Amino acid sequence: MRIKVRHGGKMDFALARAWRIWDNIRVTKQHKKEHQMIRVNENYLKIQASYLFTEIAHRVKAHQEAHPEAKIIRLGIGDVTEPLAPAVVEAMHRAVDDEAGRERFCGYGPEQGYAFLREAVAKNDFQDQGLDVAADEVFVSDGAKCDCGNIQELFGADIKIAVGDPVYPVYVDTNVMAGRTGANDGGRYANLVYLDCTAANGYVPSPADLAEPVDVVYLCYPNNPTGAVATLEQLQAWVDWARTNKAVILFDAAYEAFIRTPGIPRSIYACKGARECAIEFRSYSKTAGFTGVRCGYTVVPKGLVGYTAAGEPVELRPLWTRRQTTKFNGASYISQRGAEAVYSPEGKAQTKATIDFYLENAKIVKDALVKLGYDVTGGVNSPYLWVNVKGDSWEFFDRLLKNANVVTTPGAGFGRAGQGYIRISAFNSRANVEEAVDRLSKVLA
Amino acid sequence: MRIKVRHGGKMDFALARAWRIWDNIRVTKQHKKEHQMIRVNENYLKIQASYLFTEIAHRVKAHQEAHPEAKIIRLGIGDVTEPLAPAVVEAMHRAVDDEAGRERFCGYGPEQGYAFLREAVAKNDFQDQGLDVAADEVFVSDGAKCDCGNIQELFGADIKIAVGDPVYPVYVDTNVMAGRTGANDGGRYANLVYLDCTAANGYVPSPADLAEPVDVVYLCYPNNPTGAVATLEQLQAWVDWARTNKAVILFDAAYEAFIRTPGIPRSIYACKGARECAIEFRSYSKTAGFTGVRCGYTVVPKGLVGYTAAGEPVELRPLWTRRQTTKFNGASYISQRGAEAVYSPEGKAQTKATIDFYLENAKIVKDALVKLGYDVTGGVNSPYLWVNVKGDSWEFFDRLLKNANVVTTPGAGFGRAGQGYIRISAFNSRANVEEAVDRLSKVLA
Repeated sequence: MRIKVRHGGKMDFALARAWRIWDNIRVTKQHKKEHQMIRVNENYLKIQASYLFTEIAHRVKAHQEAHPEAKIIRLGIGDVTEPLAPAVVEAMHRAVDDEAGRERFCGYGPEQGYAFLREAVAKNDFQDQGLDVAADEVFVSDGAKCDCGNIQELFGADIKIAVGDPVYPVYVDTNVMAGRTGANDGGRYANLVYLDCTAANGYVPSPADLAEPVDVVYLCYPNNPTGAVATLEQLQAWVDWARTNKAVILFDAAYEAFIRTPGIPRSIYACKGARECAIEFRSYSKTAGFTGVRCGYTVVPKGLVGYTAAGEPVELRPLWTRRQTTKFNGASYISQRGAEAVYSPEGKAQTKATIDFYLENAKIVKDALVKLGYDVTGGVNSPYLWVNVKGDSWEFFDRLLKNANVVTTPGAGFGRAGQGYIRISAFNSRANVEEAVDRLSKVLA
Repeated sequence: MRIKVRHGGKMDFALARAWRIWDNIRVTKQHKKEHQMIRVNENYLKIQASYLFTEIAHRVKAHQEAHPEAKIIRLGIGDVTEPLAPAVVEAMHRAVDDEAGRERFCGYGPEQGYAFLREAVAKNDFQDQGLDVAADEVFVSDGAKCDCGNIQELFGADIKIAVGDPVYPVYVDTNVMAGRTGANDGGRYANLVYLDCTAANGYVPSPADLAEPVDVVYLCYPNNPTGAVATLEQLQAWVDWARTNKAVILFDAAYEAFIRTPGIPRSIYACKGARECAIEFRSYSKTAGFTGVRCGYTVVPKGLVGYTAAGEPVELRPLWTRRQTTKFNGASYISQRGAEAVYSPEGKAQTKATIDFYLENAKIVKDALVKLGYDVTGGVNSPYLWVNVKGDSWEFFDRLLKNANVVTTPGAGFGRAGQGYIRISAFNSRANVEEAVDRLSKVLA
């Protein structure tokens, strides 16, 4: 069999791709005829294994072994350290008791979450803030990581994606696994559009930074890892771009509870027209210390559409409902009752106090570093500090580990544009933070 | 641009497919040039909406409205009704208290589950039964439905799947969403292989029933919905087939705790060679009443491989680790502590007593139906009874609803081969079960 191709003597990209696919099918068919065998999803093999935290653990372990007396302080980690709010604890005890008797026993709940939580979310996180989100647009889950990872299933295999650099790796890896990228070359995947987040753009890229048209952009503010926040005008520019280009914004607001500066939006829905183009992810992990309890939610507004190949609009909300009802069975009843308690008057006051505590930690570290002459992003409106170390990320990491017994995270681990930075986290006890600052001040003075 | 195809004058299937793909790419490209727009995953649009439980709810509601005095008993539902075991309740209260203080606070846990639970599973569910499963082959999750739904991500897009008929819809729908099937025509999807489960094969199909070669088969024993169990010989035949054909068995053992007949295997790993070809799903939902608590696990043995297009073997366990660490953040710490308590001496005795209670419910219903002359599968080693109603599923459903105020599930809702059957569930109070049996005996006498 032969395929003859004519196109002004030149084979274009689409045809070359079809040719490869066809060739692949042909080879597979021949192969299967002789040797039937289950095929794996080879996109998984493209994933650049993230050695970041493995490498950090390795270096910390080696240092501790060489200096058994060293009291190492970890400011690298993105996990909370403070206990759950008493209101949450009480609610979860009551929920466990509900499950202990026939009368109030809760078995399978709605996959989208119990009405008591969806309604509390819509009221407290949106309607009371003047934002238009209804309870049936809120999908409760076991955490924002799952939702951020699963949402791409709703989209076509050949859509084009844009992400920030540095970036939370889940946005990238889940699209690699779904086959939307080429191979990784020098730390970047082919067919993925990277938006550099640098001092030049204040760590907040704009649609003008897009090197080519894309269908989806992942935005995260307050940002992990840079701690940068976006203004209403900056977010509105993305919403305007998405509406004009029939694109979708996936907005990760996991750290919104850290925002204290008036006017900085906590939600993409603060922007005009965002309901037409944006999905938002929220998490109780950082808001209320639920990293071990597991609860978050995703907002998919009514009327938000994608399109078929034929150009027919398709609402995304029923697609997400279908995804969640088919592949998920609801978050734990106990976790959902805990999340509900975050919205009680006591829960609000207690969780705010904990966030304030982390923010004070961040301020202590930031003030010290600024005094030492470092340029620091974040540390306000965010638990993360993004420090320009005026040199190599890993060398600076090693310097702090060896001389101050302080663990940070090398920015280069979050992407090419993270080189030259370290991320410092405010999740620790006050005593540890103060001790770490004392040591850093001596080492960096 | 033109493609000229020559193959003895005939275009074969692979080329036709490549042609369609190419044409699609070409059309899309042209389309995008004029109207860029985010594309949806059109496979979602193929899904035949399951109206089964919606339709049941509709008929029950209409009946209740017409007869407000009727005391309706629901034997259709697959959800548990008995409270959690006291040992589980105590463990979960302790876990909530762990989260209430700085000292024992647990934030992010390992995505694969805490060692305390993985080790308890490996020991109690496998090693103590003489089965070879190690703790690091156990992946704890928030439930078997999620794992059954997500596992297909590890495989190539063009693999061929076999499922039973009747079937738990998750196996089917998740593959439809991933694009492995054609359209649904008369209740069956093109490119999916169905294994009829009928009286002729004792509701347990064998590899000889496969109409064509497949790469993956979903097996579920004790079966949902038929309640049938497979013997060791029957499962061994599937394992032998899978090893010979380099295929993979996805074994759903969610109902294994209901097995009481000696010799009936509780795990696929009772079969020789199963570690080379089988993944097993387990759930605490039915075992310990965790439908609202959310915890289950999946076993992926070391050495179990799939293949690349080039025929290179690829271990599935690291792929599942990658999937879970990228798209999941671990089950709730509180749920995992609850699951651990299922393996304490008290937990074992208490959960067994609850299963015994449900099994006695099943026996009461089965004895009555057999006495009335019905052919009933299941009801032993299973909470489900699969009743041959010698007529139309929905007509029989209506008859029981209208004349006995008893809700069942029409077997036709689980697949074409379920027509002529109803499913009855043993999940209810003893009083309700006895009352339902009295009514059925009068109506069906």
